[in-house]
Amino acid sequence: MQNFEAGSFDVIVIGAGHAGAEAALAAAGMGAKTLVLTINLDMIAFMPCNPSIGGPAKGIVVREIDAMGGAMGKVIDKTHIQMRMLNTGKGPAVRALRAQADKVLYQAEMKRLMEEQDNLSIHQAMVEELIVENNEIQGVITQVGAIYRAKTVIVTTGTFLRGEIIIGNLKYSSGPNNQQPSLKLADNLRDLGFDLVRFKTGTPPRVNSKTIDYSKTEIQPGDEVPRAFSYETSEFITDQLPCWLTYTNERTHQVIDDNLHLSPMYSGMIKGTGPRYCPSIEDKVVRFNDKPRHQIFLEPEGRNTREVYVQGLSTSLPEHVQRKLLESIPGLEKAEMMRAGYAIEYDAMVPTQLWPTLETKKIQNLYTAGQINGTSGYEEAAGQGLMAGMNAAARALNKDEIILSRSDAYIGVLIDDLVTKGTNEPYRLLTSRAEYRLLLRHDNADLRLTKIGFTAGLIPEERYERFEAKKKLIEEEIVRLRKTIIKPNEETQSLIRSKGGTELKDGIKGQDLLKRPEMAYEDIAKLSPSTIQLTDEMKEQIEIQIKYEGYIEKSLLQVEKLKKMENKKIPDLIDYDAISGIATEAKQKMKEVRPLSIAQASRISGVNPADISILLVYIEQGRIAKISG
Amino acid sequence: MQNFEAGSFDVIVIGAGHAGAEAALAAAGMGAKTLVLTINLDMIAFMPCNPSIGGPAKGIVVREIDAMGGAMGKVIDKTHIQMRMLNTGKGPAVRALRAQADKVLYQAEMKRLMEEQDNLSIHQAMVEELIVENNEIQGVITQVGAIYRAKTVIVTTGTFLRGEIIIGNLKYSSGPNNQQPSLKLADNLRDLGFDLVRFKTGTPPRVNSKTIDYSKTEIQPGDEVPRAFSYETSEFITDQLPCWLTYTNERTHQVIDDNLHLSPMYSGMIKGTGPRYCPSIEDKVVRFNDKPRHQIFLEPEGRNTREVYVQGLSTSLPEHVQRKLLESIPGLEKAEMMRAGYAIEYDAMVPTQLWPTLETKKIQNLYTAGQINGTSGYEEAAGQGLMAGMNAAARALNKDEIILSRSDAYIGVLIDDLVTKGTNEPYRLLTSRAEYRLLLRHDNADLRLTKIGFTAGLIPEERYERFEAKKKLIEEEIVRLRKTIIKPNEETQSLIRSKGGTELKDGIKGQDLLKRPEMAYEDIAKLSPSTIQLTDEMKEQIEIQIKYEGYIEKSLLQVEKLKKMENKKIPDLIDYDAISGIATEAKQKMKEVRPLSIAQASRISGVNPADISILLVYIEQGRIAKISG
Ligand SMILES: Cc1cc2nc3c(=O)[nH]c(=O)nc-3n(C[C@H](O)[C@H](O)[C@H](O)COP(=O)(O)OP(=O)(O)OC[C@H]3O[C@@H](n4cnc5c(N)ncnc54)[C@H](O)[C@@H]3O)c2cc1C
Ligand SMILES: Cc1cc2nc3c(=O)[nH]c(=O)nc-3n(C[C@H](O)[C@H](O)[C@H](O)COP(=O)(O)OP(=O)(O)OC[C@H]3O[C@@H](n4cnc5c(N)ncnc54)[C@H](O)[C@@H]3O)c2cc1C
Repeated sequence: MQNFEAGSFDVIVIGAGHAGAEAALAAAGMGAKTLVLTINLDMIAFMPCNPSIGGPAKGIVVREIDAMGGAMGKVIDKTHIQMRMLNTGKGPAVRALRAQADKVLYQAEMKRLMEEQDNLSIHQAMVEELIVENNEIQGVITQVGAIYRAKTVIVTTGTFLRGEIIIGNLKYSSGPNNQQPSLKLADNLRDLGFDLVRFKTGTPPRVNSKTIDYSKTEIQPGDEVPRAFSYETSEFITDQLPCWLTYTNERTHQVIDDNLHLSPMYSGMIKGTGPRYCPSIEDKVVRFNDKPRHQIFLEPEGRNTREVYVQGLSTSLPEHVQRKLLESIPGLEKAEMMRAGYAIEYDAMVPTQLWPTLETKKIQNLYTAGQINGTSGYEEAAGQGLMAGMNAAARALNKDEIILSRSDAYIGVLIDDLVTKGTNEPYRLLTSRAEYRLLLRHDNADLRLTKIGFTAGLIPEERYERFEAKKKLIEEEIVRLRKTIIKPNEETQSLIRSKGGTELKDGIKGQDLLKRPEMAYEDIAKLSPSTIQLTDEMKEQIEIQIKYEGYIEKSLLQVEKLKKMENKKIPDLIDYDAISGIATEAKQKMKEVRPLSIAQASRISGVNPADISILLVYIEQGRIAKISG
Repeated sequence: MQNFEAGSFDVIVIGAGHAGAEAALAAAGMGAKTLVLTINLDMIAFMPCNPSIGGPAKGIVVREIDAMGGAMGKVIDKTHIQMRMLNTGKGPAVRALRAQADKVLYQAEMKRLMEEQDNLSIHQAMVEELIVENNEIQGVITQVGAIYRAKTVIVTTGTFLRGEIIIGNLKYSSGPNNQQPSLKLADNLRDLGFDLVRFKTGTPPRVNSKTIDYSKTEIQPGDEVPRAFSYETSEFITDQLPCWLTYTNERTHQVIDDNLHLSPMYSGMIKGTGPRYCPSIEDKVVRFNDKPRHQIFLEPEGRNTREVYVQGLSTSLPEHVQRKLLESIPGLEKAEMMRAGYAIEYDAMVPTQLWPTLETKKIQNLYTAGQINGTSGYEEAAGQGLMAGMNAAARALNKDEIILSRSDAYIGVLIDDLVTKGTNEPYRLLTSRAEYRLLLRHDNADLRLTKIGFTAGLIPEERYERFEAKKKLIEEEIVRLRKTIIKPNEETQSLIRSKGGTELKDGIKGQDLLKRPEMAYEDIAKLSPSTIQLTDEMKEQIEIQIKYEGYIEKSLLQVEKLKKMENKKIPDLIDYDAISGIATEAKQKMKEVRPLSIAQASRISGVNPADISILLVYIEQGRIAKISG
C-alpha cells in the first residue's frame, strides 16, 4: 500500500456511532476543523440494540447533552415514535424521559446534521493505524493508505475492535449486525501499549409484527402530553405508536434450562464480560431462578417497518432455541423471527488509562470515547463523545479543558467513575451511581450546563440569552414567593380546604405555602398572581426548587465540601513512592489512576481515608512544589 | 455446527436485492409459502451504485414489471426525488422514464412491502449450502446450521459471491459497500458443478453537496408534468429536486493519463470483466481518447442527505487520484469526497446453464436471477427476479411455466439473450438489443403483459377489470376513428390550416387524418368528438397505435413468422450428434444451450441458417419422436 497525504485537521474522530457523532459535531461546532472517518456512512448513529433513547439516568444524560449544545436530544425529538416520562408519580430526582426511536430516521437525521455542519468533513474509511511520535498523536492512516494529520484524534470505535459475533456455537469475526470489524486498529492500540480487555454484549431477536397476537399482551401507549428532550424543540410529534408488554413464563424458563449446555456463555465460548444491568435472558433465568416471570416489551423499530424488537430477550443461545423461547411467550407463539439474537465480543480500553478529559495518559492529544471505554449504551456513548469532542477541540484551539464534576452532571459521574474506578464489566449509568441525585435532575439540566456549552461556543448567543432570561424569571419569581405574604382570607382557606389541607391560622409566605405537599405552584399563583408570564417549564422549576429546597440545600452543602477536596489538586509529577505511610495497594492504584485531586483520589477503590490524610499532609507541606514547579 | 430443521417452504429466495425482492413478492403473491434469506435486513433493495431507476430500455422493464404485478414501479413512485421522461421529442419506441431515488426511503419502502406481504417470511441469514439430492434442490443450510426445506430455491446473490473490493492496489474480501461477502455459497455452487465466471463492476465517489459550486454546472430539473412508473399510482410527488450537469476536461484526462499505471485495471490486478456500457472513467478516457470531455451528472442520493452521486466518474483508481479527478472538474474543485469510488469483482453464473424459466439445467427446481446471471443494473435484476419468482412458484404450485418471448417484453429479450447467447461481460439491457422496439414500448406495457400477470395470480381481479375496460375503450375508439368520416367543412379546414397542414379535398377517415404528422388525437376529437370519456393515457395509446399502425403491423408480421419458429419445439432429448450435416461448432453450442425451439436455436451465435435447415428437416421427419416419446 502506497501512503499519501490526504489533509490536515484540528480534530479527527474515528467512528460515527453515538459517541463519534456527538464528538464530531461538538468539535466542529466549536470551530475546530474536523474530520470524521467511519467504516460505513450508511450506518451513522446506528442502534444495534434497542430502538430507544433515554430512561432512568440515561434520559437525563440526553438532556445534559442538549443543554451543552449536543445533538442526541434534537435528533430523537424529530424521529421518535413514542415518548414517555417515567416515574412521574415519584420525586423529581428520578423522573426520566424515554423515547422509542424510528431507527432508520434517527440515523438519517443524524447523518444529515453532520453533513450540514460547518467545519466538518465526513469520509467513509477504515482507520488502521494511529501515527504517534514522542508519545503524541500526529494523525491516522486508513486502509487505502491515506494519511490524515491532526492536532488531536478521538477514537470512538464502539464494539468493532476485534468484534466477534456469537450465536450458539457459531463465532465469526464481525462488527455489530454483520458490519466489518476493526482488526488492525485493535492490534495497533495494543502495540501502542494500551491495556485492552474483552467485553461482550448481546441483543434479542426481532420479529414481524404481522405475526404477533397482540390480544395476549398489554398495550403501552406514549404520553398524551407532548414531550421533548431538547430545550430547543418547539414542534412536537403527535401521532405516536404504542409498545406492548408480555411476559416469560415457566415454559420459557424450562426451554432455557433444557438448553443451557448449548449456551456459549456457559460452554465457555464467550470469554468477554457481559453487562450486569443488561443481562441476557439465560442469565436472568439462572441468576434469579425463583422469579416466575420476566417482562418482555415489544417495541416497533420504526413507523414504516413491521420489525419489532423483543426487549428483555437478549440471548446468544442457538437459533433453534431462540425460536422455542419465542413460541413459549404469550402473543409470540407464532411470531416470525426476522433476525436472531446474538452476542458480540470486543476489545475495550481499560478506562483508568484516561484523564477526566478522556485524553489518554499514554499518548498526548489522543482521546477515546464511547463503548471503547468500557461503557454500554447509546447515551453513555454520546455523553462521552460530546466531552471528548469538546476537549479535543479545546486542546487544538488552545482553549481551556472542560471537566464536569459529579455534582454537575450524570456525564460527570460517568466519566469520573470510568477514569477513577475503572470497570470490569460493560458500565451502565444508573441513578444509584450519582450521590447528588436531587441536583442532577431532568428538569434542571439547562440550569446546570448551558453556561458550560455557551462558554465552549456550542450554544449560540441567541439561545443563551433566552436561557438567561428564563433563569432570571425563575429566580425573580422565587424571590417574590419568598417575600409575598398570603393572607388567610376566605379565598385562601377555601382553596386549601378543597385540596384537603389544614386552614391557615395566620398569613404565610407564598414559599411556605407551596412547600405543603398538597399545594402546587398554580394554586399559589391563583392566590397571589405573578406579574410575569411564566411557561409551564418555569412553573415546574419554581415548584421543584421551592418544594425540595431543604434537600437541595443539604446536597449543595455536601457539594461545597467536595469542592474543597476537588480544589486540592495533586500535582501530576507527584512521586507516590516517596510518601511514606501510604498503603502499598493505595500507592499502586494512585500511580495507575493519577488522580487530579484529593477528591478523586479518595474515590479510588482500595484507597482508604488514612491514605488520603497522609497524602493531604504531604501536599500541604508543599513538598511537591519543587518537583512540579 | 449442529444442524437443525427450521421449516419447510414452497419457495426459498436467497438474497433481497432488486432481484430477490421481486422474486419473493411474486412467489408469495402467487400463493406460494415463501421464505427470503438475506445477509442484512437493513440492506434490502440497496442501491450500491447510482441512485436512479429507469432510463432507456430499463425504464420500460420497470413498466413491464409493474404490468405483471411486480413492485419496483410502485416503490420508486413513492420514493423518488425527481422523474423525467427521456426522448419525448423522439418516437414512442425510445421514450423512457427515469427517476432519481431517495435511496434510504426506497429501501425502507421495499422492506415494508415485503414485511406486509402475505405468505412471505423474511429472515436475516447467510446461506452457505444448497441441499441437492438426485440433481434436485431440497433446501438450504445457513451459517447457524438452520436447514430450510423447499420445493424450489432461487439464488439472487448479486455481486456477493466471493466479492472483492478494489481501490488502487488495495483489494479485500467484501460485498458491495463493505457488506459481508458470500464465500461458502460460491464454493458450493462451484462444487455442484456450475460454471462461474469472474466479472467486475464499479462505482464513482460520492461528495457533499455543501461543497459543490453549482454555479459552474447546469441545472437538470425534473419534468413538470407528474409522472409515474406504475399503472396503479394515483398520488404523485410534486416537489422534486434537480440534478446538475458538469463535464470532465483536459485536466481530468491528464490526471488519468498520469496515473494509469496505478489503476488496478491496467496493472492486471482486476481480472474480472467489466461492463462495456457502464465503463469506468479511466476506461472511457483510454478508449475514446479523442473525446475532449465526458458528461458528469451530480445526482442527490435523497431528500434528507447532502450526499451526491457523481455519475460518470466510476473508478477504481487510488483514492488520492480520485481526489485529483474531482478537483479538476468545474463545480467540484472543492468538493469533499464522502466515499471513494471502487470496483468490485465477483463470481457470476454462465447463464447458458439456465432454461428460459431461469431454472438451472443441472439442478431441478433451482433458479438463479439478477446480477448472479451475468447482468448489471437494478432493473435487469428485478425483471429476472420477477420471472424466477413466478416460475419457481408455478413449479411449486403445479402451475404452468411463464416464459416471455422477445416480442412480449424487454424482459423476454434479456432472458433470451442470457440463456441463448450467454454473455462474456456484465450484460446491460439496451434499446438496440430488441428487434421489435416499436412493440416493446413504454406506453403499452400493460397491454402486453397485464394478462400474464393476471393469469399467474399477481394482478388482482379488480385491477384486471379496470385494465380490460381501458383496453376495450381504446379499441372501440380506434374502430370509431376507422369508420368516422371527417368532412372537409370550414371547421376542419381551418384547424388543418392552423396546424400548417394541407387542406382536405374530400372527406377522410378519422384514422387517416390522425396519421398526418401534424395532427394529434385531440384535434380529431375536436372535429369528431367521442361519446366516451377517455383518459390522457388512452388518448396517447390511440394516437400511437394509429400513427404507427404501418410500422407496428410490419413488426407484428415478423413476430408471426418468428412465432412459427418458436412453435417448432425441439424435444429436450434430441441427440445432436446423431444429426449428420450440422457443423461441429453449431452442434457443440446447441448441446450446451439446449434450445427449446428452432427460433431459439437460430439465435445461438455460431449456429448458421444451414444448420437450422438441417435441424428443421430432421425434426420434421419425426425422427425424434421415438426418442422423446
Ligand atoms: C449487539 C449489541 C448489543 C447491545 N446491547 C446493548 C444493550 O442491551 N444495552 C445498551 O445500553 N447498549 C447495548 N449495546 C451498546 C450500544 O450499542 C453501544 O453502547 C453504542 O452504540 C456505542 O456507541 P459508540 O459510539 O461507542 O460505538 P458504535 O455505535 O458501535 O460506533 C462505532 C463506530 O466506529 C466506527 N469504526 C470502528 N472501527 C473503525 C475504524 N477502524 N475506522 C473507522 N471507523 C471505525 C464504526 O463504523 C462505527 O461508526 C449493544 C451493542 C451491540 C453491538
Ligand atoms: C459497486 C457496484 C457498482 C455497480 N455499478 C453499476 C452500474 O454502474 N450500472 C448498473 O447498471 N449496475 C451497477 N451495479 C449493479 C447493480 O447494483 C446490481 O445489478 C443490482 O443491485 C443487482 O441486483 P441483485 O438483486 O442481483 O443483487 P444485489 O442487489 O447485490 O443483492 C444481492 C442480495 O443477496 C444477498 N446475499 C448474497 N449472498 C447471500 C447468501 N449467501 N445468503 C443470503 N443472502 C445472500 C445479499 O445480502 C443481497 O441482499 C453495481 C453494483 C455494485 C456493487
